[in-house]
Amino acid sequence: MRFIDLIGKKRNGQELTKEEIHFFIEGYVKGDIPDYQVSAMLMAIIFKGMTKQEIFDLTEEMLNSGETIDLSEIEGYKVDKHSTGGVGDKTSLVLGPMVAACGAKFAKMSGRGLGHTGGTLDKLESIPGFNISLDRKEFIEQVKRIGISIIGQTGSLVPADKKLYALRDVTNTVDSIPLIASSIMSKKLASGSNTILLDVKFGDGAFMKNIEDATKLAKMMVEIGNYFGRDTRAEITSMEEPLGLAVGNNLEVKEVVDTLLGHGPEDLTNICLHSGSTMLLQAKLANSFEEAHRMLKEKLDDGTAYKVFLEFVKAQNGDISYIEDTSKFPLALYREKVYAPRSGYISKCNALTIGLAAMKLGGGRERKEDTIDMSSGIVLKHKVGEFVNKGDELATLYTERPKYEPIVKEILGAFEIVDEKVEKPRLILDTIEA
Amino acid sequence: MRFIDLIGKKRNGQELTKEEIHFFIEGYVKGDIPDYQVSAMLMAIIFKGMTKQEIFDLTEEMLNSGETIDLSEIEGYKVDKHSTGGVGDKTSLVLGPMVAACGAKFAKMSGRGLGHTGGTLDKLESIPGFNISLDRKEFIEQVKRIGISIIGQTGSLVPADKKLYALRDVTNTVDSIPLIASSIMSKKLASGSNTILLDVKFGDGAFMKNIEDATKLAKMMVEIGNYFGRDTRAEITSMEEPLGLAVGNNLEVKEVVDTLLGHGPEDLTNICLHSGSTMLLQAKLANSFEEAHRMLKEKLDDGTAYKVFLEFVKAQNGDISYIEDTSKFPLALYREKVYAPRSGYISKCNALTIGLAAMKLGGGRERKEDTIDMSSGIVLKHKVGEFVNKGDELATLYTERPKYEPIVKEILGAFEIVDEKVEKPRLILDTIEA
Repeated sequence: MRFIDLIGKKRNGQELTKEEIHFFIEGYVKGDIPDYQVSAMLMAIIFKGMTKQEIFDLTEEMLNSGETIDLSEIEGYKVDKHSTGGVGDKTSLVLGPMVAACGAKFAKMSGRGLGHTGGTLDKLESIPGFNISLDRKEFIEQVKRIGISIIGQTGSLVPADKKLYALRDVTNTVDSIPLIASSIMSKKLASGSNTILLDVKFGDGAFMKNIEDATKLAKMMVEIGNYFGRDTRAEITSMEEPLGLAVGNNLEVKEVVDTLLGHGPEDLTNICLHSGSTMLLQAKLANSFEEAHRMLKEKLDDGTAYKVFLEFVKAQNGDISYIEDTSKFPLALYREKVYAPRSGYISKCNALTIGLAAMKLGGGRERKEDTIDMSSGIVLKHKVGEFVNKGDELATLYTERPKYEPIVKEILGAFEIVDEKVEKPRLILDTIEA
Repeated sequence: MRFIDLIGKKRNGQELTKEEIHFFIEGYVKGDIPDYQVSAMLMAIIFKGMTKQEIFDLTEEMLNSGETIDLSEIEGYKVDKHSTGGVGDKTSLVLGPMVAACGAKFAKMSGRGLGHTGGTLDKLESIPGFNISLDRKEFIEQVKRIGISIIGQTGSLVPADKKLYALRDVTNTVDSIPLIASSIMSKKLASGSNTILLDVKFGDGAFMKNIEDATKLAKMMVEIGNYFGRDTRAEITSMEEPLGLAVGNNLEVKEVVDTLLGHGPEDLTNICLHSGSTMLLQAKLANSFEEAHRMLKEKLDDGTAYKVFLEFVKAQNGDISYIEDTSKFPLALYREKVYAPRSGYISKCNALTIGLAAMKLGGGRERKEDTIDMSSGIVLKHKVGEFVNKGDELATLYTERPKYEPIVKEILGAFEIVDEKVEKPRLILDTIEA
């Protein structure tokens, strides 16, 4: 078999066999097939797509390129959750303790954030002392004991995806549904949980710009998951405006604590209750969505979810005094309020603009090697659908970098204020099951 | 400017500017842009094509990536000729002396053959002593003195094409009209002649499999040549069966001598008279095609063209005793006749099959690093349209390799013999001018 012929086959729109995809992935990981041939193949895939069977085979070959995690030691349903990423998305940190409080086993391996602002691991690391590098045994022991652990993905998990993603990133071949779906799902499948809930976001601040593409991607991933025998479901959610109010690492952790204490932003609370309900159904811990919703609400209201979060932080060596008193988190040197230039209803609060602004303030990475200022970012005061008077506070920016003036303008530019009343946008637009 | 954004632009079907193409080619030649990014770009070009202006700009940037040859010292019209390559194509060796005998200056730099059988340089090197590596000064002096020289392309000519072609070759991105046209034309333009005649072949034995693609490629190359101020014309010729009867290096040189002596195969003689006539028109050495044709026929009949060939071989250190007595050329160790399995008209003599068979006999290269047996190959006895009786000789194979039995079958498989009378196929189907 010659890889150049496989490139030709894909270029002509023909289906690759399982053996051919095996040859491709194994050869690439081993270094037998050079980057320049693989990037030609990736671009051919961009134009010619892949059949379902090809995507299943690609996922399987990627999955088998490294170690897979065996969670069978942990009793009960191991539930996993993945978000395609968005601005202000801290749901895992709220949701994990909530479902764990209801008896699900939340054993999550997280990748480093690829977006403009920090990922789940960065947010956790903004808690002093928090350790994301447990070994396998510690990870499993913790989930058994308190129902939740979140750690960093090890390099030995799906090395094929690591290598392929790095190449896609520099060859403009990232946004392809077959490649995204197999990349995400191979990692989820390798992580060993019984169920997978996918939060596929669409909108300016998300990877998928429109609901049609998000739905296509979600359906594909659900098919992959079920093909490999995992109960996989997906929610299609809007990322036109940031999720919650806080954007930036320790700012978001404070919001997580607020939410677990019952006074978080409404959209964040609602999405956590909604996704959590689906997860409890997947884990067969509730008989109906309504029952699941009630259970979660109860654990939130009675403080059980918050207590699980405290245990979780403590178990991973985080200093819980910061959680018990979030005013202990260091504040950024510069804080600047941004005011409404006119009265009216907010019709837009562009997630991408806010995300990029937060990044420039130091709250995210422009390049992989950049470090993050944990206390930098933006906290919104108002969101779409709300009425503001001229001069009301719209948001506060937090940064360690003195030259933040242009960013104030960028943040203002994210907002649109109009005379006519604006409805609050729907957050969860669809749920996809097998 | 970032090359990844240019890949994205092409991926979306947008036109690249001259500055962007400059950045691409300069960056690639310098090594600033890695192979894996360029191969993604090449595959995007395969799917999205290039506009005329992009192709002109790409040709110009490639042309300017290395040295260009200045032939202005040579008086008169410098004529150049390029064939896209085919089985048994030895026209340059006949045509060159013919047009030189009429006063044109045939200053040709040839690349190494990429096809199954040897290229022009290989054929010349089958003449003992022949030197294809003249320096610039010797090359120009020889053309001034005897009107013809054929040498190998130096590496400093269009280095961008060298690098790009090598990458295309291993990434299945060779067959793209924009890429082929700019590759061929950048080299022709860099070689410094006033006029360019292109022989664009189509058929099983050619790079372009059908006349439509050949015509598209020819038109594009003619447009490029004229854009850069060279009188450029193209002939569309058939490569369904080999050209002439001989396939293989010294076997073809013998046929060249026969043709120059007036008793070569009819198709080869005709195409040389036809192409030569176009070249004389381009060089303004004749007022009409008919006049040019007459002039060439005369130089062929009175032995002048043959004498120019002798001078040419002698000037480049070739042993002319081999030309004066072609029986001196070494014969391959094994010679085996192939006989007609039935009586009838030959309706097919597949050029690709014959070319591959000749390669396997040692007459061509499977890989770049292979060496060629100069006396190996195939000499046909009959071609399409001719009647044969069962048991008549169809061809003779020549090889140094003892296990040639399977090749006999392959050669037989190239032929189709039918009951109904078959017309001789047309060789030259179209001529394209500005």
